[in-house]
Amino acid sequence: MCLFCEIAAGTIPSKKAYEDETVVAFYDIAPQAPVHVLIIPRKHIESAQVLTETENALLCHMFEVARSLAVELGVAESGYRLITNVGPDAGQSVPHLHLHLIGGKTLNWNN
Amino acid sequence: MCLFCEIAAGTIPSKKAYEDETVVAFYDIAPQAPVHVLIIPRKHIESAQVLTETENALLCHMFEVARSLAVELGVAESGYRLITNVGPDAGQSVPHLHLHLIGGKTLNWNN
Repeated sequence: MCLFCEIAAGTIPSKKAYEDETVVAFYDIAPQAPVHVLIIPRKHIESAQVLTETENALLCHMFEVARSLAVELGVAESGYRLITNVGPDAGQSVPHLHLHLIGGKTLNWNN
Repeated sequence: MCLFCEIAAGTIPSKKAYEDETVVAFYDIAPQAPVHVLIIPRKHIESAQVLTETENALLCHMFEVARSLAVELGVAESGYRLITNVGPDAGQSVPHLHLHLIGGKTLNWNN
């Protein structure tokens, strides 16, 4: 089973920021900024490249969770970045779709 | 009218990568990598933070366009990064929702 499937299932521990029936959000273990949360679907989807219409509601729900977390974590006004990495050139570390929510400091193209 | 609304309308020129009735994609004028395209909705939406359910289909279509462009631009296999910046800390340069598609080289957290 993949690492993020195990985190979603709770068999590998994580510091959760949010969870519901379809989506889990947890704090990145190697944060790049004061706020760094990963938002994942419970369903195993390799990356954004293999999303289909079947997952439209799920993708939108991931964004909805990101918006709520941005408010809850205090970065909705100050700003934040949403990132999803696909494949080797982007350094996608785990082959399970995840959305990074990063904020709490000034970000630029160099961080 | 905002810069990206004008680009979508064609009143400000851009090098388009794709366009249809609801979405426009164009090459970034300050590319951070060999492939750097911006995918925007024609509808003026300030950022990902103010998306609502009304825009669910539009958001998913932006991702669909990103996937197609990744294939067309030759980065679907090598990998790419999708980014949307929200607000000042993220350096959101234009207050019109846009999805950066970046690839064609090895990316890390420092680029």
